[in-house]
Amino acid sequence: MQLVERFLCEPFPPLAQRIIQEGVVVNDRILKIDHFLNHRIDTDLMSAIGVELATRLQPFAAELILTAEASGIPPALATALAARLPLVYAKKYDPDVPVPALTRHIHSPTRDRQVQLAISARFIPAGSRVAIVDDFLANGRTALALADMVYEAGATVVAAAFVVEKQFQEGRLLLQKLGVPIISLAQITRFVDGRPLIYGWPSSVPGQSDG
Amino acid sequence: MQLVERFLCEPFPPLAQRIIQEGVVVNDRILKIDHFLNHRIDTDLMSAIGVELATRLQPFAAELILTAEASGIPPALATALAARLPLVYAKKYDPDVPVPALTRHIHSPTRDRQVQLAISARFIPAGSRVAIVDDFLANGRTALALADMVYEAGATVVAAAFVVEKQFQEGRLLLQKLGVPIISLAQITRFVDGRPLIYGWPSSVPGQSDG
Repeated sequence: MQLVERFLCEPFPPLAQRIIQEGVVVNDRILKIDHFLNHRIDTDLMSAIGVELATRLQPFAAELILTAEASGIPPALATALAARLPLVYAKKYDPDVPVPALTRHIHSPTRDRQVQLAISARFIPAGSRVAIVDDFLANGRTALALADMVYEAGATVVAAAFVVEKQFQEGRLLLQKLGVPIISLAQITRFVDGRPLIYGWPSSVPGQSDG
Repeated sequence: MQLVERFLCEPFPPLAQRIIQEGVVVNDRILKIDHFLNHRIDTDLMSAIGVELATRLQPFAAELILTAEASGIPPALATALAARLPLVYAKKYDPDVPVPALTRHIHSPTRDRQVQLAISARFIPAGSRVAIVDDFLANGRTALALADMVYEAGATVVAAAFVVEKQFQEGRLLLQKLGVPIISLAQITRFVDGRPLIYGWPSSVPGQSDG
């Protein structure tokens, strides 16, 4: 891994510890950490996540943080508060986002149907430098749709930052095709015996470690 | 207005000024401030809102902040960060909230259909002291549903706090029946000539002022 990428995706200790100690793996595919990240929120950890993501984003000189409702809002707001940048969140279920609006349809795995992401175009000024922030990078569809809308608005995606990245899914590949630098605080490489392995972090499974 | 209630609902100047100067009134019923509160977020203002709500909530000794996705999350997280309390947000569109779950159906005016609010019961421990925080108090249905779920969990609602309260709708009355203290940072009494009037705040409409 190149030096820059190493810094951008170094495991963030307070998060990695909690994932290893408390993460629950479902069907060797889903990592459940909803008790501190995206249903109940441990605000001390979320505040530290915001500061860390803002620090790693700092070199990219973003002017605006963009996410999608709802589970993207906590880490994105914590990052925007730390970086003192405005936050815009794409709406998923709101039929009357003010026009002109930027819209994309994506497939939602949790709801197993198409949902529409919508942003009022006035909130993504042409020429603005936008950083995408979300809780998970998995199949990358939400991040790709957000990036697509940013480009449609004539703005630039300077980086995409995630709290957790599931490396065994294709999100990183798809974003790399756009040339977007990717930041993540915990790269889950795989699940072994129902436990998550984090790249560059000692594992709780004897004899198993990645990076 | 009693002394205590006055403190709880005193207009918060940084917010009241922005509403008076920038608020757009639609059909004399909807106040659009989505450019700083609930689509694009002015994070400096949101941070100040969080500190102010946490200060007004402080006497009620809450142990947990509860809101509902999605527009409740920013002010509720800003408050939880300031108060250093955990935050739980009820999910609206997630079919697989971990069981046992607390659920209520409410009518969503923006979507003009029923939506289900769901919370994993383990995140509302019996006996816990819960403060509800949301961006608007209008018809009160979301706050009532959240309060209902808290009581079902055997916990207590110690207060309900809102960034903006629309006094001409029945939300306050419904919550008062539960005996829940209500906090709001801007009480919109009515709209005059397409301008909002805030209780206890000089209006931008000549000869019109409330409180």
